[in-house]
This record gives sequence, C-alpha cells and structure tokens, in this order.
Amino acid sequence: MKALEEKILREGKILNGGSVLRVSSFLNHQIDCDFLTEIGAEIARLFAEDHVTKILTVEASGIALAVAAGAALHVPAVFAKKHKTSNLSGALYQTVVHSFTHNTDYTVTVEREYLCPGDRVLIVDDFLANGKAIEGLLDLIAQAGAEAVGAAIAIEKGFQEGGRTLRARGLRVESLAIIERMDESGITFRH
Amino acid sequence: MKALEEKILREGKILNGGSVLRVSSFLNHQIDCDFLTEIGAEIARLFAEDHVTKILTVEASGIALAVAAGAALHVPAVFAKKHKTSNLSGALYQTVVHSFTHNTDYTVTVEREYLCPGDRVLIVDDFLANGKAIEGLLDLIAQAGAEAVGAAIAIEKGFQEGGRTLRARGLRVESLAIIERMDESGITFRH
Repeated sequence: MKALEEKILREGKILNGGSVLRVSSFLNHQIDCDFLTEIGAEIARLFAEDHVTKILTVEASGIALAVAAGAALHVPAVFAKKHKTSNLSGALYQTVVHSFTHNTDYTVTVEREYLCPGDRVLIVDDFLANGKAIEGLLDLIAQAGAEAVGAAIAIEKGFQEGGRTLRARGLRVESLAIIERMDESGITFRH
Repeated sequence: MKALEEKILREGKILNGGSVLRVSSFLNHQIDCDFLTEIGAEIARLFAEDHVTKILTVEASGIALAVAAGAALHVPAVFAKKHKTSNLSGALYQTVVHSFTHNTDYTVTVEREYLCPGDRVLIVDDFLANGKAIEGLLDLIAQAGAEAVGAAIAIEKGFQEGGRTLRARGLRVESLAIIERMDESGITFRH
C-alpha cells in the first residue's frame, strides 16, 4: 500500500540502530483516524471474497486496526486479552505467547462465546516480526474449531522470520508494507 | 442514545449482584463494529461545534470507541498507556490513577509530542463509574497546556459519583446511556 509506505518514510523513526521502527505518531499511540479508515478499506478489499465473519487481534495496539477492518467488512472484531498469569477460567480459550521484545511469556485469552465453529476469522495486527503473537491467535482459532482465512498486517518486518514461517504453514499473510531492510540510513521496502 | 440503551438491555449481563455490567459482546471484548460506527457518529454530532482537535482515551477498552469518534470527527485519537510502575522517561506526561476495581494504583502516560498547547481535547471512554481514569486524563491535558472540551462516555453508572464530581468541576460530560439503577431484576436508565 503505497500510502502506508509514504507515511512510514515521512513519520517513522528508526531507533536502537535499526531494530525498532517507531510509528507511534499515526499507528499505535496517536492514531491517524482518517488514515486508519483507508487501511481498513484496503484490508476489506483484499479479503472481500473470503466470507470473513470475524476479525481477531491482540490488545492493545491491534485494536484500532481491527476495528477499522471490522467496520469496512461489517463484521465484529474480537480482541484477545493479555495476562501475566495462566490458570484462568474455563470459559476461556487460552494459549501462551513468548514475547522477544520483553523476554517473557504471557497468556492470551478469548472468551469461548466469541469464537465459534463456523467462524471464518481474519487475524489483524499492526506489526509482524517473529510471528509468535499470530501463532498464538491461530492456536485460539483452532481450539474454537473456527477457520483462519488469513492475516492482514500493517507493517511486516521482512527481515525477521515471522512472515516466512506463517506462509510456510499455509496461512495467507497480506502485509500492507513489508520492510526489507532498515537502518539509520533509511528503509527499503519489498515489492 | 436509544439504540445503546436497547443494546444494553438485549445483550448486557448483570453480575456480582448488581455491581458489574458486562457488555463484552459488543463494546469491550467483542466489538460490534457497525454499531461502534453509529456511536462514533453520535459523539461527533454532540461535539460538532466544539472545534475538537484530538481524542484522548486510556488503553485498552477505550481504544475502539476513541477511534470511532476520531474517524467521525476527522481528528487523531491518542491512547494513554498504563504502567504498573512510575519513574518513566521525561519525554512523557504521566499521572497516577487509583483503580477501585483492582484496588491498586497505576501510572498513565502520554508522549509529550502528542498532546500540545492549543489542542482542544475530547476525552472518550467506554465506562464512567468513579471517574478516576478521567481525572487522570484531565491531569495529563492540564500538564500539556491543552484544553479539555468535554468527555464522551458510552455507559455511565449514574449511581456512582464520577459523573457528578466531573460535572461539578465544570467538565461537560455526555454519556450516551446513564444507568440509574441496576440489580438482578433489571436496569433503569436516567433520562
């Protein structure tokens, strides 16, 4: 999505010598709502033929994008909740996700009534790097007996393994911008 | 907002003998995106003359509503982040909020560049009960030298003191549904 690449080049900041891309001016702290509506419409266009019945994301930074996609596709959005501990209620689907950013494990949960057999679920998230969060969501979808129709990602870090791993297991992954390389001198996108 | 009252009556669940209203089927776990768009439009209508430049909420359950209001008003939405600890970076506005639900204090922060003098800020949140979260956001707005034009709330628990306290200090509070009373026999709205 050319408009997203331009926005990243204009507003993104590369930190920590090229390992972190900060897009908090428009995507995950301050949100450019008009631009978010455009991203939601693009996701809806990509998955228009897939009979999506539900959007699934993880709190907190995925929520805005999930709601924009849900509004454009006219389906509900569910956000999985993060917990520090496991051992929660039996009314939940739950799985453990490893965070490389914080070097810790956390549990993500969805109440059972909001993911159902027969649901055709589109995963939405702001970033894809190592793919562990999305693997966790795929596990929740499988537990529910629902079907994952794909994942729509705003920004994929193409130099990390998540995108390759998820595509190798057969998931359709649509990333609106894929970063091939980034360092303090700039960003190169994959096309 | 009659449609919201009807939705609460149809889908809301009263728990803990009348102290908790669960609306996770459409507002804060699963989100009814089409209905959220309607709520955003209603908030935009209420504050259409107020030259709002920014929406402010707290993660995570306020984000969806904030984005819907921002999309309808064509302004950015900022979500304050929650931390367990204080003593954060100087690039942040921060304040401490007491949570009665979890009986603990937490710190909410906004990066300084996203709240500016001259900003006319509309606070948005899913629930108003004791009002402590909104008082925290008002503190952040004051630290930034910005102006709070009001607060738009989906559901106010009118039997708790937050709404009265905030209105008494001069804040315009627009709650789309105000619950006068709720117990296991049902819900009464204030009109």
